[in-house]
Amino acid sequence: MATMTWKRHHVLSLADFMPEEYDTILQTAASFREVLSRRLKKVPTLQGQLVANLFFEPSTRTRSSFELAAKRLSADTLNFTPGTSSLTKGETILDTAKTYLAMGTDMMVIRHQQAGVPEAIAAEMDRIGARVGVLNAGDGQHEHPSQALLDLFTITCILDPEKPRIELLKGKKIAIVGDILHSRVARSNIWSLTASAAEVHLAAPPTLLPQFFAEMGSNRAGKLFLHWLVEPALEDADFVMTLRLQKERMENHLLPSWREYHQRYGITRERLKLCKPNVKVLHPGPVNRGVEIASDLMDDPEFSLISQQVTSGVAVRMALLYLMGSSKA
Amino acid sequence: MATMTWKRHHVLSLADFMPEEYDTILQTAASFREVLSRRLKKVPTLQGQLVANLFFEPSTRTRSSFELAAKRLSADTLNFTPGTSSLTKGETILDTAKTYLAMGTDMMVIRHQQAGVPEAIAAEMDRIGARVGVLNAGDGQHEHPSQALLDLFTITCILDPEKPRIELLKGKKIAIVGDILHSRVARSNIWSLTASAAEVHLAAPPTLLPQFFAEMGSNRAGKLFLHWLVEPALEDADFVMTLRLQKERMENHLLPSWREYHQRYGITRERLKLCKPNVKVLHPGPVNRGVEIASDLMDDPEFSLISQQVTSGVAVRMALLYLMGSSKA
Amino acid sequence: MATMTWKRHHVLSLADFMPEEYDTILQTAASFREVLSRRLKKVPTLQGQLVANLFFEPSTRTRSSFELAAKRLSADTLNFTPGTSSLTKGETILDTAKTYLAMGTDMMVIRHQQAGVPEAIAAEMDRIGARVGVLNAGDGQHEHPSQALLDLFTITCILDPEKPRIELLKGKKIAIVGDILHSRVARSNIWSLTASAAEVHLAAPPTLLPQFFAEMGSNRAGKLFLHWLVEPALEDADFVMTLRLQKERMENHLLPSWREYHQRYGITRERLKLCKPNVKVLHPGPVNRGVEIASDLMDDPEFSLISQQVTSGVAVRMALLYLMGSSKA
Repeated sequence: MATMTWKRHHVLSLADFMPEEYDTILQTAASFREVLSRRLKKVPTLQGQLVANLFFEPSTRTRSSFELAAKRLSADTLNFTPGTSSLTKGETILDTAKTYLAMGTDMMVIRHQQAGVPEAIAAEMDRIGARVGVLNAGDGQHEHPSQALLDLFTITCILDPEKPRIELLKGKKIAIVGDILHSRVARSNIWSLTASAAEVHLAAPPTLLPQFFAEMGSNRAGKLFLHWLVEPALEDADFVMTLRLQKERMENHLLPSWREYHQRYGITRERLKLCKPNVKVLHPGPVNRGVEIASDLMDDPEFSLISQQVTSGVAVRMALLYLMGSSKA
Repeated sequence: MATMTWKRHHVLSLADFMPEEYDTILQTAASFREVLSRRLKKVPTLQGQLVANLFFEPSTRTRSSFELAAKRLSADTLNFTPGTSSLTKGETILDTAKTYLAMGTDMMVIRHQQAGVPEAIAAEMDRIGARVGVLNAGDGQHEHPSQALLDLFTITCILDPEKPRIELLKGKKIAIVGDILHSRVARSNIWSLTASAAEVHLAAPPTLLPQFFAEMGSNRAGKLFLHWLVEPALEDADFVMTLRLQKERMENHLLPSWREYHQRYGITRERLKLCKPNVKVLHPGPVNRGVEIASDLMDDPEFSLISQQVTSGVAVRMALLYLMGSSKA
Repeated sequence: MATMTWKRHHVLSLADFMPEEYDTILQTAASFREVLSRRLKKVPTLQGQLVANLFFEPSTRTRSSFELAAKRLSADTLNFTPGTSSLTKGETILDTAKTYLAMGTDMMVIRHQQAGVPEAIAAEMDRIGARVGVLNAGDGQHEHPSQALLDLFTITCILDPEKPRIELLKGKKIAIVGDILHSRVARSNIWSLTASAAEVHLAAPPTLLPQFFAEMGSNRAGKLFLHWLVEPALEDADFVMTLRLQKERMENHLLPSWREYHQRYGITRERLKLCKPNVKVLHPGPVNRGVEIASDLMDDPEFSLISQQVTSGVAVRMALLYLMGSSKA
């Protein structure tokens, strides 16, 4: 199915991903997209395998997507959420992970509010010689690789539905607009998009886009640009990625108000006129309607890829679980 | 399996259900009841299909029943509950539903504390041309169709276990006793029971049974009667449906106390002597023991159908999911 | 697979377990351990059967273990947890159990904060002639049979991995250290370990080890000893079982502080020198690191069996569900 032998046991960060790895994921996801279009949307690939979703930071949406991806591959699943958990009883996070390992977990999908937790768990698993794959489903403000990979799949499928691949991004201009500073989605996307010869333009208020983000663009195939106004980022853009704005930012005085944010950085039909005519808009969800994107624009299938992103998510997560599983064989 | 071709994509309300539709559901449920009596209580009917339980208002009991019905049909299931959800993050209900649609949901089972939400979601799904079925699992004080259908199945199975059908209700007297005003179960049952030539008698204190309920009986095959005392409703009744009483009603001064309610409207052995000798009592559960029904009466299999109602629930929900699924093919 | 015909419908307490019953469980668990070592870690044994996990007292770890055991046997599972449940609505525990029975539950796994609840449910199920098995997954300070059985499996597998059986414990010295008074794990382990000719030594501060525990040793095959110091219990011990310490004990002034507990009763490398050279340490988890056991000792595979206990848990719970299921046929 894939064009290369997959060697990565864990998927923790996209910082060191190679173009061939992206292409393998994109092509594997395309195969699973075909499976999901059948009436019987299921394959026996991971039958008898166990996928544990350890969501220390709760998330119904992402957990559902991973749970469904595992079920579509016929894996068994276990869901861990804190609150009703041993963590309140003083157990460490590593102990929790080891408990699920000892139960026979083959793949762990981990979300945690602190950056580095999935990496720490993966390192410990390797240290003790455990044959388990660890997948970062979002760690603090660090990374959210599967989200960036589903964004990549969504974009490259627009450019060539039959053969999504990273070289399609060559010369494309992609704007990422919003709270870059606090966004793990932005960080992972910067790595994946600059792995190709795309031009990536970040746009945010100065408080949410410190100058040090420019360093992420050094020694990458693609170029990275920073803007404190949204207009230069949108000019002739092929794709506009918007990011979710957290209420906490206003409380911390990093932003004046949602309304003012929308006036200055919100994506509207008017602003989209600056972009290429067939520009597409993405958002990782959930959207604050009328803040990051004008409400009617979000529902307009001519521009919005939000629904395709969710659909891509299942196929891409199936691809990741499949590839990680095959690397252990 | 069914006597007619099922055409209804969504099951939102019983107000406009035709007798043939009731009969199709009853006969399909009877087939699944047979499946559930086997050692291997499972059929591959919905293999590879996805049933999403979106319970905005939490309910372990009804959610378990739907989840089990889906699993008995070999469907995959996803459970959404608020609290750990994006709703607290400002996403609209329609956005949540669309997210589960985009993941590949074939059937959505929706419970919400506000009337009309399942209808609004179904309308939006139709508007965007989505091939998804929406099933109302209880919306505010509006309707709870699957509960009324399992009540209908339970009652008609008493009358003819082999061939439950709506005409069996002809000339039967059915009393519905309790908090009619706030009950979605009562409303759905009034529609289903008056679709046949049954006599439906509502009994409740005046504060819980306003006169406008009489309008639900106009232009129906069966007749509808309102009583502010319980005795005339029970007289010669074949079946007595009791409704759950919510604590909030006392706090709102709609009722004096649970004890007084039981004294005036509670179903006791003494009161049952007013009914037909082989009268049966139903309750949608959970019961406040000693309030709506005398505690020992509730456990007496000679009178109580409460346990059969729960069993019927799985078969009827399998029938609904099966029929809605077949309407899309 | 088993050496005897299993007759026990319910597993509620180990107080009256016979040696042959222990051996049947151990040998059945050994067979399932082999299944779990395959790539396809699944058997169709309980296909179409329904296992309901009714965890009135929440527990992610034990519930996950039972859920996984059921899934590895291809059973369907339903999880009940309070909070989003009817219990807050005034339903009794027996009503909840009967609701799950009426849905078609074949096996109920029950945890409750009050001693005796699983027994009461099992008695009621028998009274009404229900063909359902009830498994106690921990009731108050009473018993936790599946934990003691997985401990027994873990220990006997150390002594003979191929043929774990209870006679292997003959003449072995086993120390149980910690909060004996409040521990259902300790009580179940005392029953299982004294069923053989082992020597069981309990060690705890006087406030946590009242004299009446000595009675549990009367008329048992093995001998039971009580110590208010840890050293005599550890001397020449083959296995050391530690128990989880609850924070509440300090608040109730039953213990001075965690630090002082560790100084006087904590298991350290130094203290293990009192034991046999190849001594092994167990803990039911989750561990308070540095309290019941020194943190580095807990992670040392030469001494710690904690991880094996978790792995054993799945095999032993598969054995219990399988045997209880076969007793109904």
